[in-house]
Amino acid sequence: MMEKIFVIKIGGNVIDDNAALAIFLENFAAIEGKKILVHGGGKIATKIGDKLGIQSKYINGRRLTDAATIDLVTMVYGGLVNKTIVAKLQSLQCNAIGLTGADANIIPATKRRVVNLNKNNIGEEGAGSKNGPEGASGSIDYGFAGDISPGGVDINTLNIFLSNGFTMIVAPLTHDGKGQMLNTNADTIASALAAGLSKDYEVRLVYCFEKKGVLGDMNDNGSVIPLITKEKYRQLTDDNKLFEGIIPKIDNAFAAIENGVKEVLIGDANDLLQNVSANTCGTLIR
Amino acid sequence: MMEKIFVIKIGGNVIDDNAALAIFLENFAAIEGKKILVHGGGKIATKIGDKLGIQSKYINGRRLTDAATIDLVTMVYGGLVNKTIVAKLQSLQCNAIGLTGADANIIPATKRRVVNLNKNNIGEEGAGSKNGPEGASGSIDYGFAGDISPGGVDINTLNIFLSNGFTMIVAPLTHDGKGQMLNTNADTIASALAAGLSKDYEVRLVYCFEKKGVLGDMNDNGSVIPLITKEKYRQLTDDNKLFEGIIPKIDNAFAAIENGVKEVLIGDANDLLQNVSANTCGTLIR
Repeated sequence: MMEKIFVIKIGGNVIDDNAALAIFLENFAAIEGKKILVHGGGKIATKIGDKLGIQSKYINGRRLTDAATIDLVTMVYGGLVNKTIVAKLQSLQCNAIGLTGADANIIPATKRRVVNLNKNNIGEEGAGSKNGPEGASGSIDYGFAGDISPGGVDINTLNIFLSNGFTMIVAPLTHDGKGQMLNTNADTIASALAAGLSKDYEVRLVYCFEKKGVLGDMNDNGSVIPLITKEKYRQLTDDNKLFEGIIPKIDNAFAAIENGVKEVLIGDANDLLQNVSANTCGTLIR
Repeated sequence: MMEKIFVIKIGGNVIDDNAALAIFLENFAAIEGKKILVHGGGKIATKIGDKLGIQSKYINGRRLTDAATIDLVTMVYGGLVNKTIVAKLQSLQCNAIGLTGADANIIPATKRRVVNLNKNNIGEEGAGSKNGPEGASGSIDYGFAGDISPGGVDINTLNIFLSNGFTMIVAPLTHDGKGQMLNTNADTIASALAAGLSKDYEVRLVYCFEKKGVLGDMNDNGSVIPLITKEKYRQLTDDNKLFEGIIPKIDNAFAAIENGVKEVLIGDANDLLQNVSANTCGTLIR
């Protein structure tokens, strides 16, 4: 049987809340065995950017990363957020090492191509067009956004860190191998790391978000669906049971599973210890 | 014979100058064998701090690190400067990994104690007292400044990185083991790393600064003193030949040598490749 590893992702709702972060990190440090933490950025980059006169722009929920913004997120995600977490975990006897995808070249990526919009896309993107990145030519330039190549994660290097007892704390940053840092979504990084490690480990990928799990009834926090299989997912979709915002997360989970990840857990950061046990209280997807 | 290693420190004069930094990194990447880079912060932390409303304060050339400032330098040194260097070196086929002293706990430190001033000290510190950190009680509080304990560097961990072919790029930051990042002078970090590694390696510690080396005549850049031994140093001091600002650097060099470092080179960043050869053009101290 392969050794277990947990790849755990936290987002802004934990990072922006000092008390929640402190509790989360205590729980994270207490997890036995191998684990990796991937963190998002939170609102602090936007706050600091505002003070520096760097305006945050988004399209389809993705930050547009111009030259000033990649410097901003490199500072805030790779520096402030990452090292704050590392120092705190070190105090909890967790031998944390903070990394971006550039460090030891663990996550090479390529700068996202400029997308040319056809008529359909222009229609879909309409809502974002006022502050959007569309040029006069009808294209979207995400700027210094990094897409991870399939199989792009350096598993040998990850294994060096893991076998020496280091707990990797990964910021949502990659690089293009030509000297440029790139901004990459934390969910995507977590999924790529989990898929890469699945050749050597039994991986549970844990996405912490603001709810207890995938809810059968949006207005009832007690309606967590404990297990979603492909069949169950089809049934839930057919019955129109799912809140639209959760569908991309479930699709991403199944994509990770197709890439070798054993199971994906979607749940509340406060339930971390239960959700890395056999007795989960979030939504297990497999 | 022990394997050689170079511990190289660059300061603000290189970091603040994009063209100089690019040339330096090309040269650094070209050095064969094991090497570690320690970088200072440069003026960019002050610039960004100004925009964020964080005032830079110094006493005796050391930054006073209040709560806002430690966040600032963690962002700028540990994030922006460190990762910019790492990404650039990766593009030059140098497998760089950016670290602070908190990462993998390589450099534990303790927060500098508040210094109580006696009458003599008050006299000495007088020039700095207008903007200084002296409280009503006559004390100096450097804030979140970290002092490295003797023997505090984790050599086993450094050796794991070195033996796996990673080139460490170290930011001037440490931590207190209780969850707090600390600001530590880059010269001090370079010296501590060099001393720690001297048990296993023949270490040349290279301090890059704005001159070709220690000058016999301050106004003549051609007057580099090629070699300073203890005897030569005594003679130079007796003859009052040395510019006052260089004396602490030479004292630090001899302190490193007493801690096991084979030799210290003080020279210009542009002369890096020559200064890591047998045929140095800066000042070799041993």
